[in-house]
Amino acid sequence: MTSYKLTYFNFTGLGEPIRFLLSYLDIDFEDNRIELEQWPSVKHTMPYGTLPLLEIDGKVLNQSSAICRYLAKKANLAGSNDWESLLIDIAVDNHKDFALSLKSYWFDPNEESKAAKYVTLVNETIPFYMEKFEKIVGENNGYFVNGKLSWADFFFVSTLDHLIYRLNIEMLKDRPNLQALREKVLAVPKIKSWIEKRPSSFDLA
Amino acid sequence: MTSYKLTYFNFTGLGEPIRFLLSYLDIDFEDNRIELEQWPSVKHTMPYGTLPLLEIDGKVLNQSSAICRYLAKKANLAGSNDWESLLIDIAVDNHKDFALSLKSYWFDPNEESKAAKYVTLVNETIPFYMEKFEKIVGENNGYFVNGKLSWADFFFVSTLDHLIYRLNIEMLKDRPNLQALREKVLAVPKIKSWIEKRPSSFDLA
Repeated sequence: MTSYKLTYFNFTGLGEPIRFLLSYLDIDFEDNRIELEQWPSVKHTMPYGTLPLLEIDGKVLNQSSAICRYLAKKANLAGSNDWESLLIDIAVDNHKDFALSLKSYWFDPNEESKAAKYVTLVNETIPFYMEKFEKIVGENNGYFVNGKLSWADFFFVSTLDHLIYRLNIEMLKDRPNLQALREKVLAVPKIKSWIEKRPSSFDLA
Repeated sequence: MTSYKLTYFNFTGLGEPIRFLLSYLDIDFEDNRIELEQWPSVKHTMPYGTLPLLEIDGKVLNQSSAICRYLAKKANLAGSNDWESLLIDIAVDNHKDFALSLKSYWFDPNEESKAAKYVTLVNETIPFYMEKFEKIVGENNGYFVNGKLSWADFFFVSTLDHLIYRLNIEMLKDRPNLQALREKVLAVPKIKSWIEKRPSSFDLA
């Protein structure tokens, strides 16, 4: 039997879409969680100094979205043809760009520029992306692309809690399409079971 | 006949891997180049305020690596199976992470922190990634993954000139495997013809 070991921090973040997909696929996996205080002493042992890592039969893989795409193919969540796959990949990378713009805020060591970034985030970046996403989901039968469930929906929903925690902003407020999408994904039976049994972490309400 | 229109800046950067793949596929495309001074007045007309965009029969697509993956499938440069595709995607995203770490330097408006970042780049980031890439290419028959040409090689080689220009650092010095890979990609007949006919731009020596 193929073995799967996921190494990530003890929170949702970029590990969670992989956990969602493994759960959806009914794959047993070792959910190896590293505490933040351990990180400085183990970072140098990771191939690129980053997490998540997924080990499949001992083969070490980094890059969360590449890993998700691979798992999503097994789960038939990666599109029915190359065009559908393209639209899914675009949706995921747009969400990653959004998340990246938030990260440059929360990792900013300078309090002054951090405060300025926060204002831009609240007034510009978050409304810009969230209104786009809300509209897109409204136009695609309640999903991000192709009018059906894909790993783009999993990626968005599973990483959202961490972004909301980091910013302390309820990003789905007044965005009914995105709220409905979130509820729909969390109600998928295999995802629902995962949510019920997953360890609690500081980024989960 | 399907129409292709690429909109990007008048330099190589993230537009160039798409130009490489379209050229490799022998696809005629409109190479729409926007001058930097035009950018502020047209940025808001772009779906996510970013470039490149590829229009295929008028359908507007953003996200360079998603676009490249789609074109690479047509070109048989995206792996022979899901595992090979996964390794290609990982290689591309690792290179994108590297490029991103350089961008945070060159877009830093603060001269002091920019200078500090430069020191870190030269002494840590660039050697870290380049030594990894050099080793990986040495272990994979002179390519990034799977022992054969893939769009990961195109992505790396085509975006490199711009990174070198921005930093003014010859990143391939003393890295014979990466140098050989670069020469091999640039010698692919369709790429060679593109290089010969492409417009000159400020980031090309």
